[in-house]
Amino acid sequence: MSGTPAAPSAGLPATVARPSGRAPDQLREVRIERGYTRHAEGSVLIAFGDTRVLCTASIENKVPPFLRGKGEGWVTAEYGMLPRATHSRSDREAARGKQGGRTLEIQRLIGRSLRACIDRKLLGERTITLDCDVLQADGGTRTAAITGAYVALADAVRVLQARREIPRDPIFGAVAAVSVGVYRGVPVLDLDYAEDSDCDTDMNVVMNDGGGFIELQGTAEGHAFRREELDAMTALAQAGIAELIAKQREALAG
Amino acid sequence: MSGTPAAPSAGLPATVARPSGRAPDQLREVRIERGYTRHAEGSVLIAFGDTRVLCTASIENKVPPFLRGKGEGWVTAEYGMLPRATHSRSDREAARGKQGGRTLEIQRLIGRSLRACIDRKLLGERTITLDCDVLQADGGTRTAAITGAYVALADAVRVLQARREIPRDPIFGAVAAVSVGVYRGVPVLDLDYAEDSDCDTDMNVVMNDGGGFIELQGTAEGHAFRREELDAMTALAQAGIAELIAKQREALAG
Amino acid sequence: MSGTPAAPSAGLPATVARPSGRAPDQLREVRIERGYTRHAEGSVLIAFGDTRVLCTASIENKVPPFLRGKGEGWVTAEYGMLPRATHSRSDREAARGKQGGRTLEIQRLIGRSLRACIDRKLLGERTITLDCDVLQADGGTRTAAITGAYVALADAVRVLQARREIPRDPIFGAVAAVSVGVYRGVPVLDLDYAEDSDCDTDMNVVMNDGGGFIELQGTAEGHAFRREELDAMTALAQAGIAELIAKQREALAG
Amino acid sequence: MSGTPAAPSAGLPATVARPSGRAPDQLREVRIERGYTRHAEGSVLIAFGDTRVLCTASIENKVPPFLRGKGEGWVTAEYGMLPRATHSRSDREAARGKQGGRTLEIQRLIGRSLRACIDRKLLGERTITLDCDVLQADGGTRTAAITGAYVALADAVRVLQARREIPRDPIFGAVAAVSVGVYRGVPVLDLDYAEDSDCDTDMNVVMNDGGGFIELQGTAEGHAFRREELDAMTALAQAGIAELIAKQREALAG
Amino acid sequence: MSGTPAAPSAGLPATVARPSGRAPDQLREVRIERGYTRHAEGSVLIAFGDTRVLCTASIENKVPPFLRGKGEGWVTAEYGMLPRATHSRSDREAARGKQGGRTLEIQRLIGRSLRACIDRKLLGERTITLDCDVLQADGGTRTAAITGAYVALADAVRVLQARREIPRDPIFGAVAAVSVGVYRGVPVLDLDYAEDSDCDTDMNVVMNDGGGFIELQGTAEGHAFRREELDAMTALAQAGIAELIAKQREALAG
Amino acid sequence: MSGTPAAPSAGLPATVARPSGRAPDQLREVRIERGYTRHAEGSVLIAFGDTRVLCTASIENKVPPFLRGKGEGWVTAEYGMLPRATHSRSDREAARGKQGGRTLEIQRLIGRSLRACIDRKLLGERTITLDCDVLQADGGTRTAAITGAYVALADAVRVLQARREIPRDPIFGAVAAVSVGVYRGVPVLDLDYAEDSDCDTDMNVVMNDGGGFIELQGTAEGHAFRREELDAMTALAQAGIAELIAKQREALAG
Repeated sequence: MSGTPAAPSAGLPATVARPSGRAPDQLREVRIERGYTRHAEGSVLIAFGDTRVLCTASIENKVPPFLRGKGEGWVTAEYGMLPRATHSRSDREAARGKQGGRTLEIQRLIGRSLRACIDRKLLGERTITLDCDVLQADGGTRTAAITGAYVALADAVRVLQARREIPRDPIFGAVAAVSVGVYRGVPVLDLDYAEDSDCDTDMNVVMNDGGGFIELQGTAEGHAFRREELDAMTALAQAGIAELIAKQREALAG
Repeated sequence: MSGTPAAPSAGLPATVARPSGRAPDQLREVRIERGYTRHAEGSVLIAFGDTRVLCTASIENKVPPFLRGKGEGWVTAEYGMLPRATHSRSDREAARGKQGGRTLEIQRLIGRSLRACIDRKLLGERTITLDCDVLQADGGTRTAAITGAYVALADAVRVLQARREIPRDPIFGAVAAVSVGVYRGVPVLDLDYAEDSDCDTDMNVVMNDGGGFIELQGTAEGHAFRREELDAMTALAQAGIAELIAKQREALAG
Repeated sequence: MSGTPAAPSAGLPATVARPSGRAPDQLREVRIERGYTRHAEGSVLIAFGDTRVLCTASIENKVPPFLRGKGEGWVTAEYGMLPRATHSRSDREAARGKQGGRTLEIQRLIGRSLRACIDRKLLGERTITLDCDVLQADGGTRTAAITGAYVALADAVRVLQARREIPRDPIFGAVAAVSVGVYRGVPVLDLDYAEDSDCDTDMNVVMNDGGGFIELQGTAEGHAFRREELDAMTALAQAGIAELIAKQREALAG
Repeated sequence: MSGTPAAPSAGLPATVARPSGRAPDQLREVRIERGYTRHAEGSVLIAFGDTRVLCTASIENKVPPFLRGKGEGWVTAEYGMLPRATHSRSDREAARGKQGGRTLEIQRLIGRSLRACIDRKLLGERTITLDCDVLQADGGTRTAAITGAYVALADAVRVLQARREIPRDPIFGAVAAVSVGVYRGVPVLDLDYAEDSDCDTDMNVVMNDGGGFIELQGTAEGHAFRREELDAMTALAQAGIAELIAKQREALAG
Repeated sequence: MSGTPAAPSAGLPATVARPSGRAPDQLREVRIERGYTRHAEGSVLIAFGDTRVLCTASIENKVPPFLRGKGEGWVTAEYGMLPRATHSRSDREAARGKQGGRTLEIQRLIGRSLRACIDRKLLGERTITLDCDVLQADGGTRTAAITGAYVALADAVRVLQARREIPRDPIFGAVAAVSVGVYRGVPVLDLDYAEDSDCDTDMNVVMNDGGGFIELQGTAEGHAFRREELDAMTALAQAGIAELIAKQREALAG
Repeated sequence: MSGTPAAPSAGLPATVARPSGRAPDQLREVRIERGYTRHAEGSVLIAFGDTRVLCTASIENKVPPFLRGKGEGWVTAEYGMLPRATHSRSDREAARGKQGGRTLEIQRLIGRSLRACIDRKLLGERTITLDCDVLQADGGTRTAAITGAYVALADAVRVLQARREIPRDPIFGAVAAVSVGVYRGVPVLDLDYAEDSDCDTDMNVVMNDGGGFIELQGTAEGHAFRREELDAMTALAQAGIAELIAKQREALAG
């Protein structure tokens, strides 16, 4: 029994022909549209290329049982994908009677990520629910969801401030997410579906605007990945997230 | 025990101040956008004023068990509402683990309505699923869904014809739907949420382009409705549906 | 794309050979047996020919959460069919783990219909649940259920009055239901299974003793139905419901 | 820690005032009505006093997966109780989304009991499902269900013989069931609800016409029961079951 | 229709070659290990030969809704089997989404049995939950579970006494359980899997240390069993349970 | 809105007082017991200190639908925790009717990790299911599960080889997992519960014996973590996993 042969350990190649024609460190076109629907306190349609996710933030004046009477709030997320957001139709989870493991995993990730940028004491005994529903999928739905949900959350908090329900902004810093991977031996940023289904490693990275890591989830799809690949991927992610946070600021300033 | 006093039986008043300022026989602005998402064989975003429903048509080369080997196809529908499509957030049905009675009732209605305009023998052993997901609700989501799903179905059938999988168009006639009601004593067309939550009678009407009724579902919310109210409502519906079918034709010609 | 050819628009034929030998405007034999079981506050076995439904009314001193503390009561219904009430055995819903869409649709209809004849403020903070269980099915189970549930409800209200729990009768008017349809081109009253499975249009009508419509649900099974067919069907229903209300009165006087 | 003091071990008292006025060894009035509904191959309404259970037998030409291709049949049972069969309304299992432990336990017992009197090879690859639905409960529903289901099963087998689908009668012997208990120190036969809710021991006994035990399920409700109580109870059961089997024969001869 | 021929009624044979080589009245080796895991108030690994069940007792300061405010406690049980406790892997009940009928039946039996030896008033408003999880199965899992759960319950009660939360020991007497059966015509004690799957009758007996019966559940697997077989089986059970109670005492004294 | 202040970026402190008294780079005592239960093809009880997980490997001669007829096998995992494996009792997932998000996430992780070390073509059309059931929890249950499941998988493969069902060993390399974190500012290896509930960052690392990463899942619990913390944690993990793989080899050689 001997270990998996590691990939060639020489320096990583610098470039590759991506299906989309992008450079390895190039994000897809990112669009953020605030106020997409009118009932939610925050409502953002975010596009990472052909991936489009509707993120709404809903405020409710109650908290889950484990927080009752503790004087702090809660931020949570739910994630869904419309049945035909993808190439072939998938079953509607409401019809199947349960949410799949992937859905639960993603919505737990979104919730944890957003809770990392808010002071729940300042929020008070309120829950903000971030519903992230994928209208069209082309890879990276969870990272688009986190990035868009941050903007929806910021809008909902502004509503609370405008209503003078909270004394000051409970959000500290910004949070965004992007995927990185190793595609045909080359570390690349922001995988689309064509790359995602054909890459060796896929990693989702959530960071804040201070350059700190909030979540890091990497999976070897083909061969196990080496430390220098890990380093190259996290560096790409860091640069990409800085760009995404700039987009968020621009949208919120709009 | 004596019967409910009927509403005053004199001729119905001709007008009323609708919250939206519309005339009693006036539809909301209707917009139909084809190709809204790219994976589905038909993908239509339909708006009846502030009500916005994404209707996709998905083709699968299989039929439900009860039709296997019978040489005919199936058309069915599923309906969902995003949690924050409405004024206050409602639970996600996938998270609750089941679809509610209202959802099941609506998706059965959509399915029956669309099956009324297609020759399932000509369709062959295929299923076309119409997913109608409400992005924003302001009354009349089921009628918008039926009207939009017809266009998505027509687009999916064109795909089958373009692929030469079916010899000729299995769709005969057009199908559209609208709600009518009695608002403050006056029969009105295409209720929005403000009217719907404050009216005496609510009726959903599905008709074809031959002027025939496909479905008629009326409910007395306040007092029981009289025959002349029924007649006035069905007449309004007939005119409104003719307008909607014209909109469908225009969109499909686009 | 041209519309469905309408059925011949000449005057509707006046008669047809019904499988049961009945005249087009003839109800099946209707029997109403009160006190069928002993625990429920109201317990009625109603038969529309071979369709037999046990309707019980149960009083509970509580209301659903949305009504708590509002000083008014609730009337609701549940519907079930014994697995072998029909020609071939159907799965038991309790074993499948959920109620089907048809069941939910019917029990919502029964509940709405009965709430249309009761003053819920006078009822006080109580719930009356109408359980309608089909022992044997031969078409028209939902209309028999509504008609029988009205009698069970009236009996339950009498119990409340006898116990002096409510000051006066909260029921105003009577409610009954019947199906109508177009069978081989002829409008007919009270479809049995043989007709129901072979008719062009099927409509369920719920009316009160003032001649007002409470619910109207029509579905084109074959060709779309025309206005004169609608008119003929509602006229048949109106006459049939008057007979049913007479039967209810007779039973309650017994 | 010392053991429960046993009940006084002197000879058991010979009599007690039962709420119903019956003698200790007296069954309630038993009525068996065949052909109660018309679709099922066997349909029996059985009454043990105020306990009324509708037992239907349904034949299907298929067997569960574990028996496919083995040339033998299956007999199984399902049990349900209408929500208001009892003093206070219980939730509908179909609405709650699952069958309770008591229901599953009873239907497993009914199925095992009936399989003990049929040669499944002679039955061939068919399933007979015995649906036992309690219309009114007054104690002893499971024993009434077994006793009635036997008659429904016999009727279904006669249908198979009449259709010449099976060469000869696969049923050997008869099966019936009764409850026994110790009520106020006295062993009694066929407990009704008033006794059942106030007795020290409750035992359900299933036997065949050869005097053999098929199932014996005894539970100490109050004090643990002694061997002489066990002996007295099984003797009562044996006599009661002989009477029940005579009733079954009489009904089947009718 | 004549009854099942009874087994030869002459005196029962005295011996048989058991697969395990045991004498008919011989238990398997029984081991009881207290403190098997550290978090539970009682934690016992019990082995009946190759059958191994982990029984934990957990104390919670709350009671089910039906007991609230009544000043008495509750003892309940849950039962599970690890998927590969058996010869072939069975589905995980948590993954299937429901507990099977056998599981519910067993856990109801364990709960009833243990409630028969505790004074719930003395326990106060607390719930003790006995989780019985089968690590390895070789027949008799429910009887091992009851016997082990008794020891776990006793340990949990000692914790309550040590914490001075209850004034005195609420347990009266001891409870243990064993299976008996008729294997190749011979009554035998404590069936293992090889015997269980090949015997004519299987009976589970729960008794207390006063020699009283708490539960008796016998099932004829092959031929119906006769009274003398019943008598022989209960006598074997009584002796076996006395041995088991001695083992429990020894373990608790350790 | 300014970013989270990063933790002080000076060199990380080298040591900290861990609750267990371990050095920062010290694993808990690891014990691996093969053949813990007898039915499964692989059965391993693994302990990481007080965390004890029973890992069984079960071979079935079938594959999931998406692999049928493709000539390759499948390796999958299920994870469960006994209700009282933890400090306070948690609900049994089988009783609640669904597996929670955490459970699904963990079992998906275990399955992916083990699939990374096996050639599924060489395995042939078989499924090996790894059931990981936590008997006692003290932090790190998922990493113990992966490490133990590898040994159970290896044993199951040996069974297949011994039966000559597969031509050669489909396992390449070894896989093990460990958690790392930042506890009071110091990176530490193999968190127990006391550390896990009080640390700033928690990361689970799965690696193979070639030093490649298979999974990396890091979560900032308190402040976001910095690159040097990430580097320190992955270095600790790498050393710890080398030790664990040595333990696996030793156990498999035993």
